[in-house]
Amino acid sequence: MKTLKYISILGASGSIGTQTLDIIRSHPDEFRLAAVSIGKNVDMARAMIEEFAPRLVAVADRDAYDKLRSEYAGKVKIIYGEEGLIEAAVFPETDIVVTAVVGSVGLVPTLKAIEAGKTIALANKETLVTAGHIVTEEAKKRGVALLPVDSEHSAIFQCLQGEKREQVEKIILTASGGSFRDKTREELKHVTVEEALRHPNWSMGAKVTIDSATMMNKGLEVIEAHWLFELPYEQIDVLLHRESVIHSLVQFRDTSVIAQLGTPDMHVPIQYALSYPERLPLSVKPLDLAQIGTLNFKRMDLERYRCLRFAYEAGKAGGSLPTVLNAANEEAVAAFLAGRIAFLDIEEYIERALEWHEMIKEPSLEEIRRIDAETRKYVQSLL
Amino acid sequence: MKTLKYISILGASGSIGTQTLDIIRSHPDEFRLAAVSIGKNVDMARAMIEEFAPRLVAVADRDAYDKLRSEYAGKVKIIYGEEGLIEAAVFPETDIVVTAVVGSVGLVPTLKAIEAGKTIALANKETLVTAGHIVTEEAKKRGVALLPVDSEHSAIFQCLQGEKREQVEKIILTASGGSFRDKTREELKHVTVEEALRHPNWSMGAKVTIDSATMMNKGLEVIEAHWLFELPYEQIDVLLHRESVIHSLVQFRDTSVIAQLGTPDMHVPIQYALSYPERLPLSVKPLDLAQIGTLNFKRMDLERYRCLRFAYEAGKAGGSLPTVLNAANEEAVAAFLAGRIAFLDIEEYIERALEWHEMIKEPSLEEIRRIDAETRKYVQSLL
Repeated sequence: MKTLKYISILGASGSIGTQTLDIIRSHPDEFRLAAVSIGKNVDMARAMIEEFAPRLVAVADRDAYDKLRSEYAGKVKIIYGEEGLIEAAVFPETDIVVTAVVGSVGLVPTLKAIEAGKTIALANKETLVTAGHIVTEEAKKRGVALLPVDSEHSAIFQCLQGEKREQVEKIILTASGGSFRDKTREELKHVTVEEALRHPNWSMGAKVTIDSATMMNKGLEVIEAHWLFELPYEQIDVLLHRESVIHSLVQFRDTSVIAQLGTPDMHVPIQYALSYPERLPLSVKPLDLAQIGTLNFKRMDLERYRCLRFAYEAGKAGGSLPTVLNAANEEAVAAFLAGRIAFLDIEEYIERALEWHEMIKEPSLEEIRRIDAETRKYVQSLL
Repeated sequence: MKTLKYISILGASGSIGTQTLDIIRSHPDEFRLAAVSIGKNVDMARAMIEEFAPRLVAVADRDAYDKLRSEYAGKVKIIYGEEGLIEAAVFPETDIVVTAVVGSVGLVPTLKAIEAGKTIALANKETLVTAGHIVTEEAKKRGVALLPVDSEHSAIFQCLQGEKREQVEKIILTASGGSFRDKTREELKHVTVEEALRHPNWSMGAKVTIDSATMMNKGLEVIEAHWLFELPYEQIDVLLHRESVIHSLVQFRDTSVIAQLGTPDMHVPIQYALSYPERLPLSVKPLDLAQIGTLNFKRMDLERYRCLRFAYEAGKAGGSLPTVLNAANEEAVAAFLAGRIAFLDIEEYIERALEWHEMIKEPSLEEIRRIDAETRKYVQSLL
């Protein structure tokens, strides 16, 4: 029994988006592109329309809209603005929504997709980080599956297949250590944007690459894992593993550990989210452990990686703190990428924002939006 | 819903047997000892009766029988001889039969247990090696589960939970390399029995420890895996991994690899076979990868480890050849342990037996017995 799955991609022009298109391209009998949101890149939108013939294309602004409209009127529905993201998310034919937009802009469309009963292939970290309590409750209420796309969460999810959640002792997220893993805190004072963007293992977007270097990426993943797998923070560990070959592990109460391994290539977890519960062939170089030779592990140091400590603290305290953590981080990273602040200032600004904020226990969507905006303003005022 | 499982142990005095008793001891609400076969050790039988109150105790000879009979008549059924092994295997109350006897003596009782509809916790390699075609067919016919106890097969079995067999690309059995992994073939000429018995990672019986050093252990495991997981030999790999932390791996067609890891402690796979599909708490030291620091992998060398090559060849050729491989190995290892032959003679004698034998395609149980006996005689004639 083979049924075609229709896919919406929110954020089709980014790293996860284009790799999702690779998967759709290589399995025409399994997947069809139904709708995309694609920012402002008209050429890319055009190429996508020609190749995949989606029924709906949402662009970011009027300008892109006008251009595409004149070419494809009557063939493809073109829309623009924030509404476009939502329309792509709730597109009627769509079975699976890949939420590949970066940042807190992904939250509302994801919630709308859940309300519409779509399966979510979750690549947008902020959704669970800022509104985990709302999103997971809504998904449960609608009986909607949240399938992780992040390699670590996909690994955990794969390791949990056929297992019982209540027999899990802990989950262990691996962390490569990012671009600066061999530098001391002293050396971190003078690193450049260019150096920060050289991730040793993974090819990813700029924001995520910086988050890897500060370890905030892992911090956000810890908070995500808390919501996705319904585990207290005490049962979520982080392990330094520079080769990124073991993508994460689950330890059960009989001490048995199940791990997922592979070549560091995002096509694998993306395809798994789309094909789940099946596994489809994929032309990625298979793992060759004999050739790799050695895998290394090191205990995580929360003093060296202060952003991870902040994330654990914000996660445990809960409420609106993860929203502040995330918004402050987004602003600080943007400022770093723009050359306005130094690398170690990122954690400094996050810490100040967390101290400045007065925590709300179970923030509504409206409060999350407000706190997100206020935090950004606060961080900008520090620059 | 908690139901007590009744256990029969064939070979309760050995390494697997006593560790199975540890598991039963630590989970009195889950497991009960129903029947045991226990060789000649009267003191051990007595202690087991006092602690676990099994209903049936099978001993190896008349002498042990007489002693126990006089003490426990009316309380415990005592029997002796090869029949005893079978009676313990088919004991009416028994749910799971742990086949922990070493050598080809395990075959008939295992088949009888399958016929009686018992779940098999398979710790006796020879059962599948010599009669895989008969045993797996019988198990299928009776709808009986063959649950592996070997750490490697248990690992594979755990990795396959929730997965589809037809989406498996290959399975990878890890091998520590045994006591002599750092020695050249030249150095192997003069090793002693004592040195051979010092396994670096696992505490096991003498026969298995020697088989680890020759890599015949892995060879037998490859043949077992072929039958247990219904995979051609081309989809079964062996990887050198000196730390024995990754117990084995499964690679799927999307290149994703699932592995099972843990402290090298046989209690884990034994308990998993008994508790399957549940996992129960177990007081074994949990794995600490940060403390271990490094895991190493090396490509298997079939010239260095000729016994493994013989096993692949015998397995692929099939028929009666694995029986010859196994019987020749048992005799040669016994001769080595008795100080009658040198370490490298083991593989020499196996090779000669394989060359001497005329293969039968689908040997019956009777033919397997005959070929087993003839092979042993042949190897003895070489000594």
